[in-house]
Amino acid sequence: MTSMLLYDTTLRDGAQGEHINFSAEDKMKIALRLDDMGFHYIEGGWPGANPKDTAFFEAARSITFKNAKLAAFGSTCRPGMKPGDDPLLKALAASEAPVITLFGKTWDLHIERIMENTLEENLRMIRESVGWFVSLGREVIYDAEHFFDGYKDNRDYALETLAAAWEGGSEVLTLCDTNGGSLPHEIEAIMEDVKGWFAERSFEDKRPLKLGIHAHNDSNLAVANSITAVRSGAVMVQGTINGYGERCGNADLTSIIPVMQLKMSIDCMVPERLARIKSLSRFVSETANVPPLNSRPFVGKSAFAHKGGAHVSAVLKEPRGYEHMTPELVGNERRVIMSDYSGKSNVTYKAKEMGIDMEGVDSREVVSEIKRLEQEGYQFEAAEGSFRLLVERMAGRFKPRFQLKNFRVTVEKDKDRHCSSHAVVHIDTPFGEEMSAASGDGPVSALDNALRKALECFYPRDMAHMQLVDYKVRVLDGAGGTASKVRVLIESRDPDTIWSTIGVSEDIIEASWQALADSFHYKLGSSEI
Amino acid sequence: MTSMLLYDTTLRDGAQGEHINFSAEDKMKIALRLDDMGFHYIEGGWPGANPKDTAFFEAARSITFKNAKLAAFGSTCRPGMKPGDDPLLKALAASEAPVITLFGKTWDLHIERIMENTLEENLRMIRESVGWFVSLGREVIYDAEHFFDGYKDNRDYALETLAAAWEGGSEVLTLCDTNGGSLPHEIEAIMEDVKGWFAERSFEDKRPLKLGIHAHNDSNLAVANSITAVRSGAVMVQGTINGYGERCGNADLTSIIPVMQLKMSIDCMVPERLARIKSLSRFVSETANVPPLNSRPFVGKSAFAHKGGAHVSAVLKEPRGYEHMTPELVGNERRVIMSDYSGKSNVTYKAKEMGIDMEGVDSREVVSEIKRLEQEGYQFEAAEGSFRLLVERMAGRFKPRFQLKNFRVTVEKDKDRHCSSHAVVHIDTPFGEEMSAASGDGPVSALDNALRKALECFYPRDMAHMQLVDYKVRVLDGAGGTASKVRVLIESRDPDTIWSTIGVSEDIIEASWQALADSFHYKLGSSEI
Repeated sequence: MTSMLLYDTTLRDGAQGEHINFSAEDKMKIALRLDDMGFHYIEGGWPGANPKDTAFFEAARSITFKNAKLAAFGSTCRPGMKPGDDPLLKALAASEAPVITLFGKTWDLHIERIMENTLEENLRMIRESVGWFVSLGREVIYDAEHFFDGYKDNRDYALETLAAAWEGGSEVLTLCDTNGGSLPHEIEAIMEDVKGWFAERSFEDKRPLKLGIHAHNDSNLAVANSITAVRSGAVMVQGTINGYGERCGNADLTSIIPVMQLKMSIDCMVPERLARIKSLSRFVSETANVPPLNSRPFVGKSAFAHKGGAHVSAVLKEPRGYEHMTPELVGNERRVIMSDYSGKSNVTYKAKEMGIDMEGVDSREVVSEIKRLEQEGYQFEAAEGSFRLLVERMAGRFKPRFQLKNFRVTVEKDKDRHCSSHAVVHIDTPFGEEMSAASGDGPVSALDNALRKALECFYPRDMAHMQLVDYKVRVLDGAGGTASKVRVLIESRDPDTIWSTIGVSEDIIEASWQALADSFHYKLGSSEI
Repeated sequence: MTSMLLYDTTLRDGAQGEHINFSAEDKMKIALRLDDMGFHYIEGGWPGANPKDTAFFEAARSITFKNAKLAAFGSTCRPGMKPGDDPLLKALAASEAPVITLFGKTWDLHIERIMENTLEENLRMIRESVGWFVSLGREVIYDAEHFFDGYKDNRDYALETLAAAWEGGSEVLTLCDTNGGSLPHEIEAIMEDVKGWFAERSFEDKRPLKLGIHAHNDSNLAVANSITAVRSGAVMVQGTINGYGERCGNADLTSIIPVMQLKMSIDCMVPERLARIKSLSRFVSETANVPPLNSRPFVGKSAFAHKGGAHVSAVLKEPRGYEHMTPELVGNERRVIMSDYSGKSNVTYKAKEMGIDMEGVDSREVVSEIKRLEQEGYQFEAAEGSFRLLVERMAGRFKPRFQLKNFRVTVEKDKDRHCSSHAVVHIDTPFGEEMSAASGDGPVSALDNALRKALECFYPRDMAHMQLVDYKVRVLDGAGGTASKVRVLIESRDPDTIWSTIGVSEDIIEASWQALADSFHYKLGSSEI
């Protein structure tokens, strides 16, 4: 097995993504996690260009990473200036990062038209900037910005910029498809030419050439371009977790790593860590506060989800039948989806998986009830708690521990003051009635608090150990303005379990109530009366 | 320019996506749109296997498509049965679709282990099923399911299945990477071998071989695998709009088409239609009721969005600097994002684009106010109406046409009855005060109705032509249960304009009020007092 250097730039290039916003603390949490996963390089940001990034590198000085080298990103020095006089380069050096990733210009269009600089001066800036950091004892990685575009417009000059960085003492020359417009066969042909050109030119420096690849996804080819470069001899892959990044994003390391490790026999992540890559993906999306993409290859919730009835029965007989790999290798799992397309086998599989007793239930009736509810906007695939209650209700086994008599929620706002919400809930239980009132941060929170208070009178132990951990709202059909249908999903947990429940209505409070009531019913379902 | 057949299977394979659910009417709307866009084949579903699909093909009989041939999808006949006796094949024929796309088994693992059939019998089923439809005068496309996996396990047999379909009279042989596990260099090598094998074998039928490609995205390589196959001689590409499909989806035609047309000189869609592909993508995601993916290459909202300040100034000077193509060619447009990373140039560009007068405003102050608000959860990139109001407030030019004195919203629920909501709103205007009450489908709808009623007393003409068209809620931080922060985005329109406004709060009613009030302020901002 050959091996490969993984270079993560989630914290720098990833943070350029439209909805991505990391605090310095977020960055540190992610960096520690990447280190733990065995990434070889972590690019933390551009110290000096951005106070958040400067703060991150300051905090990083007191951290000892186990596996990763921390890289500070920055540009070559300004035209007409010595690297040691350039305040931006001095700030980079002051970051104390052991690795400096310097990007320089390759493309004559950028140098002449945008920067209004000369091609010759640009070569000096590259050579001297790399050399200055090398003289300070830093490892330098040179990122050749727009390498492929520059090569296509002016091959000879593009190659000279690489030579300048190599002569300066750069450890790796990273070829960047900055605009993401290149195709795999172009990457292959250009990389072969770069290798050939370097082999023919006589450098004083006899180190073996090390190339890296940095791809963007504007043509939906970032993963393909990265692995093509690897097949053409690149020894470093730059990318981001979940492919976050500007425009269409960077090359997605959560795809590239499993492809290299499991399908190309390239050693880049040991199996124990690879089995945590789904969890890494989820962690980064939660920290970035971006909903995880279900269809994301390898790590998405739907990556191994089967919907068609025929696929489900085949995959149960022989997993390779519809799975290109074992989901557990990347920490993922097979899922069977309840839906319109579900056959009996899906419902039976799901019920068995959840330990639901199907005795006394006709699974065809369950399928047709699910289909009816999904027409109304329910989605049981994300609400297994409500699915269990549905089956138990249909089996006539459901004994509610409480019933609503009525509730009233009031939200008031005075001029510039914030809203205040309070709720009154009146319930009936096998042990008697109770009416409770509570306030909350918004109407649903008030309703949650009031219901919980009422239930505490009868089920104090259950209530002490249960909490709501997630609340999601989705507007199902935007066309009706504020009168559209909404779907509410609530996730709750106690020390042993996590469960999700659902509500759908044109009224957000009604939908929230359904999901809330189901959540408490689910919890209390197993408590003794 | 070579040309290429586009085969769309959004309505069949795309509908297998986890959250995708099309009614027969949705399918017809999409089919007509695809036809209008010049797709050569539209696969409508599997008539006979699914009542919705049967209904779609019934409805399609009275439609004359301008460009596309309609294809019905189905399987080869059952083991031990003649095609003409198989009820599933008879239902396919009865659909009256001019094209029949038959899938058959390639992989010995599937045939022997899952179907418990013999390899020989499978060849008969393929040959005779294709032949039967050809004898009925239908054009047959043969989809070789699991072709690449089958080839890797048993090359000779996989090739024999293709020969059987070819001998049966299939027009095109589509090689399917059903599990999505293959890599581009494998696709290339296998396709070369297929072509060589066909060239050497002597068929009675001397038609030139036509190969197609059907890729899935499980390895994040579906687009790369498709264009690799095209470079290896495939004359048909199967895929879906937005890459919808089971697990990680199918090959995304909204990427493949621009890559072929604009970057590979392959003729598949004329420029006037290509310029509507973004709108097609949006239409399909709206019909599927799946939020459009902003980072989707070519057609996503962020595909040409620039966030970094340096990128913005470069792109304004020379678009090629950070854009791999002209966005308008695919009906998209350049966007400049207001954010944390924004420099002055973003704010100035945006203001100019929106025709906002920046006189009397310090754009650095606007940038720092935007950064502060984004820390709280605001996102002005999707709320240009609120951005304009922000600038006008900072310039001291904002003259509110109404002010809230107070409101009260009440939601009540009795036992099993649905919630009822009503709101009382008390406002002050330059023309006097007004208190109004209204009910609605939920608290926000009630608030909207009551505010509108109050404003109608003073601004009847403005109110008559304004409506809310979209209402989105996003929970920003799930960790706090029902006490998390929510972000509300409201889209409104009048006959001339569409505008979006935003509100953020821990209280959904407070957040909705902010967005609602901004929406009315935006509308009334330009009305004369």
